[in-house]
Amino acid sequence: MAGKKYIYMFSEGRADMRNLLGGKGANLAEMTNIGLPVPPGITITCEACNEYNRLGKEFPPGLEEELEERLKDLERINGKKLGDPQNPLLVSVRSGAPVSMPGMMDTILNLGLNDQSVQGLAANTGDERFALDCYRRFIQMFGDVVLGIDHHKFEAILEKHKERLGVKFDHELTPAALKEVIAEYKDLVKTETGREFPQEPQEQLRMAIRAVFDSWNNPRAIVYRKINKIPDDLGTAVNIQTMVFGNMGSTSGTGVAFTRNPSTGEKGLYGEYLLNAQGEDVVAGIRTPKPLAQLKEEMPETYRQFEEICELLEKHYRDMQDIEFTIERGKLYILQTRAGKRTAAAAVKIAVDMVQEGLITKEEAILRVDPDQVVQLLHRRVDPKAKVEVIAKGLPASPGAACGKVVFDADEAERLGLEGEKVILVRNETTPDDIHGIVQAQGVLTARGGMTSHAAVVARGMGKPAVVGCGDIKIDVGGKRFFVGDLEVKEGDIISIDGATGNVMLGEVPLIEPQLTGEFKTLLQWADEVRRLKVRANADTPEDARRAREFGAEGIGLCRTEHMFMAVDRLPVVQQMILAKTKEEREEALAKLLPMQQGDFYEILKVMEGLPVTIRLLDPPLHEFLPSSEELLVEITRLEATNGDKAEIEAKRALLREVRAREEFNPMLGHRGCRLGITYPEVYAMQARAIFQAVAQLKKEGINVLPEVEIPLVIHVNELRRLRQLVEEVAEQVKKETGVDFEYKVGTMIEMPRACATADEIAEEAEFFSFGTNDLTQTTFGFSRDDAEAKFLPQYLEEKILKDNPFIVLDRAGVGKFMRMGVELGRKTRPTLEIGICGEHGGEPSSVEFCHQIGLDYVSCSPFRVPVARLAAAQAALKERKAQVFERDV
Amino acid sequence: MAGKKYIYMFSEGRADMRNLLGGKGANLAEMTNIGLPVPPGITITCEACNEYNRLGKEFPPGLEEELEERLKDLERINGKKLGDPQNPLLVSVRSGAPVSMPGMMDTILNLGLNDQSVQGLAANTGDERFALDCYRRFIQMFGDVVLGIDHHKFEAILEKHKERLGVKFDHELTPAALKEVIAEYKDLVKTETGREFPQEPQEQLRMAIRAVFDSWNNPRAIVYRKINKIPDDLGTAVNIQTMVFGNMGSTSGTGVAFTRNPSTGEKGLYGEYLLNAQGEDVVAGIRTPKPLAQLKEEMPETYRQFEEICELLEKHYRDMQDIEFTIERGKLYILQTRAGKRTAAAAVKIAVDMVQEGLITKEEAILRVDPDQVVQLLHRRVDPKAKVEVIAKGLPASPGAACGKVVFDADEAERLGLEGEKVILVRNETTPDDIHGIVQAQGVLTARGGMTSHAAVVARGMGKPAVVGCGDIKIDVGGKRFFVGDLEVKEGDIISIDGATGNVMLGEVPLIEPQLTGEFKTLLQWADEVRRLKVRANADTPEDARRAREFGAEGIGLCRTEHMFMAVDRLPVVQQMILAKTKEEREEALAKLLPMQQGDFYEILKVMEGLPVTIRLLDPPLHEFLPSSEELLVEITRLEATNGDKAEIEAKRALLREVRAREEFNPMLGHRGCRLGITYPEVYAMQARAIFQAVAQLKKEGINVLPEVEIPLVIHVNELRRLRQLVEEVAEQVKKETGVDFEYKVGTMIEMPRACATADEIAEEAEFFSFGTNDLTQTTFGFSRDDAEAKFLPQYLEEKILKDNPFIVLDRAGVGKFMRMGVELGRKTRPTLEIGICGEHGGEPSSVEFCHQIGLDYVSCSPFRVPVARLAAAQAALKERKAQVFERDV
Repeated sequence: MAGKKYIYMFSEGRADMRNLLGGKGANLAEMTNIGLPVPPGITITCEACNEYNRLGKEFPPGLEEELEERLKDLERINGKKLGDPQNPLLVSVRSGAPVSMPGMMDTILNLGLNDQSVQGLAANTGDERFALDCYRRFIQMFGDVVLGIDHHKFEAILEKHKERLGVKFDHELTPAALKEVIAEYKDLVKTETGREFPQEPQEQLRMAIRAVFDSWNNPRAIVYRKINKIPDDLGTAVNIQTMVFGNMGSTSGTGVAFTRNPSTGEKGLYGEYLLNAQGEDVVAGIRTPKPLAQLKEEMPETYRQFEEICELLEKHYRDMQDIEFTIERGKLYILQTRAGKRTAAAAVKIAVDMVQEGLITKEEAILRVDPDQVVQLLHRRVDPKAKVEVIAKGLPASPGAACGKVVFDADEAERLGLEGEKVILVRNETTPDDIHGIVQAQGVLTARGGMTSHAAVVARGMGKPAVVGCGDIKIDVGGKRFFVGDLEVKEGDIISIDGATGNVMLGEVPLIEPQLTGEFKTLLQWADEVRRLKVRANADTPEDARRAREFGAEGIGLCRTEHMFMAVDRLPVVQQMILAKTKEEREEALAKLLPMQQGDFYEILKVMEGLPVTIRLLDPPLHEFLPSSEELLVEITRLEATNGDKAEIEAKRALLREVRAREEFNPMLGHRGCRLGITYPEVYAMQARAIFQAVAQLKKEGINVLPEVEIPLVIHVNELRRLRQLVEEVAEQVKKETGVDFEYKVGTMIEMPRACATADEIAEEAEFFSFGTNDLTQTTFGFSRDDAEAKFLPQYLEEKILKDNPFIVLDRAGVGKFMRMGVELGRKTRPTLEIGICGEHGGEPSSVEFCHQIGLDYVSCSPFRVPVARLAAAQAALKERKAQVFERDV
Repeated sequence: MAGKKYIYMFSEGRADMRNLLGGKGANLAEMTNIGLPVPPGITITCEACNEYNRLGKEFPPGLEEELEERLKDLERINGKKLGDPQNPLLVSVRSGAPVSMPGMMDTILNLGLNDQSVQGLAANTGDERFALDCYRRFIQMFGDVVLGIDHHKFEAILEKHKERLGVKFDHELTPAALKEVIAEYKDLVKTETGREFPQEPQEQLRMAIRAVFDSWNNPRAIVYRKINKIPDDLGTAVNIQTMVFGNMGSTSGTGVAFTRNPSTGEKGLYGEYLLNAQGEDVVAGIRTPKPLAQLKEEMPETYRQFEEICELLEKHYRDMQDIEFTIERGKLYILQTRAGKRTAAAAVKIAVDMVQEGLITKEEAILRVDPDQVVQLLHRRVDPKAKVEVIAKGLPASPGAACGKVVFDADEAERLGLEGEKVILVRNETTPDDIHGIVQAQGVLTARGGMTSHAAVVARGMGKPAVVGCGDIKIDVGGKRFFVGDLEVKEGDIISIDGATGNVMLGEVPLIEPQLTGEFKTLLQWADEVRRLKVRANADTPEDARRAREFGAEGIGLCRTEHMFMAVDRLPVVQQMILAKTKEEREEALAKLLPMQQGDFYEILKVMEGLPVTIRLLDPPLHEFLPSSEELLVEITRLEATNGDKAEIEAKRALLREVRAREEFNPMLGHRGCRLGITYPEVYAMQARAIFQAVAQLKKEGINVLPEVEIPLVIHVNELRRLRQLVEEVAEQVKKETGVDFEYKVGTMIEMPRACATADEIAEEAEFFSFGTNDLTQTTFGFSRDDAEAKFLPQYLEEKILKDNPFIVLDRAGVGKFMRMGVELGRKTRPTLEIGICGEHGGEPSSVEFCHQIGLDYVSCSPFRVPVARLAAAQAALKERKAQVFERDV
């Protein structure tokens, strides 16, 4: 039955034969073919696996014969024979599917050992203990993964002997003891399987191959494929490779090297090695490895050869490589090479350097850097060289590090902050009442709450470091102190927090300022050349706007006006406005707010001169600005129970009634957004007036501004029609009053599924759309973000019911489908419609890619995410270009 | 410029020329052509109006000449001339668009009167006062609608004279006084317009025609067209019709008649008339009209002629007619005929009778009866003949009437109810804690809350009468009484409530039981023959299920299991289950609930023998079953302030912490539905076991049942996959344990937008879909129903931002679009997928029609709505058939 070729020598394969040879096999073949000293081996194809399974676990015809011949080739190349008592060939057997996949059988080492050949190995290495230990390990590994014997049973035997001899480590076992262990292992195999441990290496090999094939249909592997949508008919390959040993004396060794410094990106070999050692020894940390430079002195020729190989590999793979090597009796072997992991700084430097070295193109450089990773470069960090004392660990809620005096009260934080003191606000959890304190603090630390708790969301929005949900700290508010175990930290003590790691540290730790280094700037400029998506920022304050501009924002995509209402001097006026009994009373309060809002808009618009600024009119439910009904109720109850002042009780009761009247069952779906504009048009009119008066003022000063008035939460074109008219009327009035003419746009957030479904109608009245994907995700899934992340979403992610948190990575199948619908319908009505996104997804790379794909005009994200989005947008454009080239070629 | 014909005599038109002649013109033409004595007239076409507007308010060429000629024809037919001093022709001028449309100019009567012709009218009628009053009215009407003079100014003049003469009614003014009024009216016209009141009838007529044309572009008319999507280019016709008068002596008269009794549907003329009177006199109620039978004696010949005409009209229009007639000096004129309004009972009887008379087909009969109206026939009603004393009025929240003793406490209501007492539960508002009381009460009355408050929703679900938001009553809970003004109603006093009107009455009022009369049954049987949609009911109890079956339900589309958890003896066990610290504790509580649930399912499945029963697993957030945190907090505060028992405080604090841990910001979007099944699989497992054990038990008893297990709130196929597996495992266990084999289906509610968007994936695991349109509407709009209806939805409806309440009438553009998507994607994956709807929309006729259009298999609604849905489903099928015939013919 000749014809079908089921087995390839490494020298017969190539990197692009992944589907046939699996990932590992193709890579080993590639390295072999570019002339690297890879221990020789063969690969049994994925096709063979599929045939095996199709035939009901039978080797396909011809495979046996082919295997026999290829093994002879392998023995010839190595000058060793499988099972040879004097000079035994030992091999490893590994699975390797076209796609990396956990759950499958991993590795069997030292196959080929038996009662005879172990003696040959001992003689060859001059190390009987080593040879016996190899044999012991082989029996255990084979027994576990091929014969299905519980590995605990092997370990129990080993433990017993270690205890008997009073030793702690495996390598302390004497050859004699190891011989006993091996004998007992073999007995165990016989008891468990009813037959002797197979001594015949050919049989060992066939059994191992079957085990690899069978592991393709492991329950764990099947589930993994289902979740990750990997086809069941890919199959897995089997790699059979000659074993090499770095522990055959002083001319042997093993090590790891990077072709460039993975921390800084600096060019030059970087790594470490150990002579007379195996990989395990490096990992175990028993001996301290030496820096690679020393190898140059110890084995100059080998080092030179290795240097050449490293250069070759970097050129071949056109990327910084992480290389594992072994020297067996002076002969260098390369066991693995792969793109090296690196810090963000290194990634950027390497990419830009390689362009300058002519190794890669600018486009490749852009694609090389992970946008998520560069976030590291955009926040103040704890100096990695500093010795720090971590006293507690919470959730890393908002990146960046900060130091300051501990303060437990928002008012106090504000007071000290305004006096120029650096403070860290420490609370059990924060509420909107704490905003003014957070504004003035360097960072926030909370004992409760998750990644989307109030403190986390607000801090991220402001770009302030935050560690939340730090259950280690117990706050004693009354005593103005917190405890971590027995450690007491008092108000005024200095702590540091790291919002990227969640670490809480005692004292002031040294920090490094964020830098847009020369290389980073260069890379982003290249990115700007290729991207189609514009990048704006979400910014509510002039400071944020300024930072956003520095980071390359091309406008503001979302300027929320509600934080402006929260300032401590404004909240009473806002409450007066909300609690007004008549339209007149309300207008009186609004008249007080008008100049304040006008000032806010004036500053932000001025900073963003020449760039568009999308200002969202008031969005949150009004009761968010009122005191909590529960607190009121408790106070009233206490006053009543203690015969408190009648008038005070009555006043609190009256306030409680007002608060109650505004309470809602599901505020997220309640009286908010443009629904407020419909019921209280005077509020929106005031805001429009504040915007336009600021615009007129700036125009008079010769400053060009591009305001975009955004109506939130629209679900029907009639809402937008009504409110657009209101805004236009105010604009006309202001133009008349000031004698200044100005341009502006009116548009809407698209954040409810119905807005997507009726985007064609809504576009009749909208000059722009901005997808509010936070709320769109909440309504599309029916997930209240706060509740979901506190109650069940962690389990959903843990158990892979959902692949990603949809509030972080945009859900393409649901939310994305509605966005696409919104874009298509909206542009059908109004081809010039400007469309962006301003949800948190606007700064998340895979979401940015999707926004590019569906043809948005811009993404808008927090200022610190602007460089991330610029890079991600460029990558999206490049990927699309590639796909188009591919389509054209196919 | 001949060619275009702009004017039609009534005799030239037909009913189907509506687009050209407008609705009114086409109807007058139709009546003229079937030989009815309609006062002659002409219609200027809508085309003429459009031309007029196109030409910038110029009569199109040829219109003037055509008008002159047609007026001559009209004068010839009447033997009178416009403006003739002796024998003047008077006409009315009315607008009439193809679509009935408010906001346009309505009517000018008596056109043709001037200083001379008024004398001719006086001489002809022998009633100078009448003639002068006609003239006065004409000037006022013309002055107002044609000349644009504020009608208050005319009224001021009239009032002045009435005061001067000390009279109260217009008709008490003497001819002399009227002459003075007319003189002052004419002065007013001159002052306001700068010219004399036009005396020339031809000029009067042209001005009136222009006024009608112009009114097409009234702001009010424009807005109306925009809201109702009526094209702006329809235009309006102008109808010019000869005036006739029923007050020209004793041989004149006027009246109104129905061709069948509009209350009962009994065949035979039914109506009233007045001799020597105008329509206004009948309406004004100054003279008492006589029953129509008397006309037979007073004017036998005219009566006979009228009878013939009525029969002709009914045959012609093939429906019961409401006819206005006038007799002018012995000559009978028909002024209007239209389909008569009728009660539900009459509508049903007339439709069925007419089929039996061979007048209409069964299909027409089905289409004749308004499904919304038949709801009246399905609830107990207050006897319309009874004298009742209404003491207060609230919102008619759940139809039906009930009498009983006033009770202010749910426990007391339950106690008395179980003892066989009839009670009405009276509360400020109800909560889930009151359910057991509502179950045992005859009806519910609340002082607060809207149409969707807890009381309203629960009562409607149970088919119990409810009046809610009755602000007239002030409840003194402590004193066990309520007040309406000064009236005191104490616990134990008997009241009656009418949930169809919102009336609250003192004492026991006589009630009428609902009847499915012979004709109603017949009609519904005919409906069953033509409908394609199946009709199921939403029922949670055996009683509801039984009622649903009686009303023709073909299964249960939604059996909620949460009410079963609320029963007073179960709630403590449910709370134990929720608060369990370990899985074991939880399972212990569940083990207690299991037999109770099994009993529930046993009964319901038994009642529904042979029909499918969809049982939804637990859906609401668990904290709904726990005490309110606010109440706990108040109690703790009170205990603390008064140095209460420490142990009690601590226990309450512990409970509070548990309640708090389960509280949510937006429970509607929180930890509920299948999310509970994922986090607490043991709860769903218990429910599945209860279902299958009941099924096995019934099977053993030889009873055939068709259970469908429904997983709520699915947003991703992985949720359903997981829980379906759980249910299947339980089923297999029960089969093994009981030795009984049984069939069942597993499916899901589709109630989140994401479920619609990914219905193709979800259908892989679902044997059925049921659209939960309540929640789907909430998430599609982002409307929390309770909050929206309390806070802003009323204004949205009032101001036509939304045409209908989307929780009542299914929103086709948004929710409907997603449903269509869900159906198409679902069936693409699984063509046999069974699809239904179980939201409240399932019983609303226009929503039922939509469900038919998108190809659902069934609708499910409350038991009382089942007949409504049967009828609506039949109508939907018939309308579709008609549309198909139409398409084929075109």
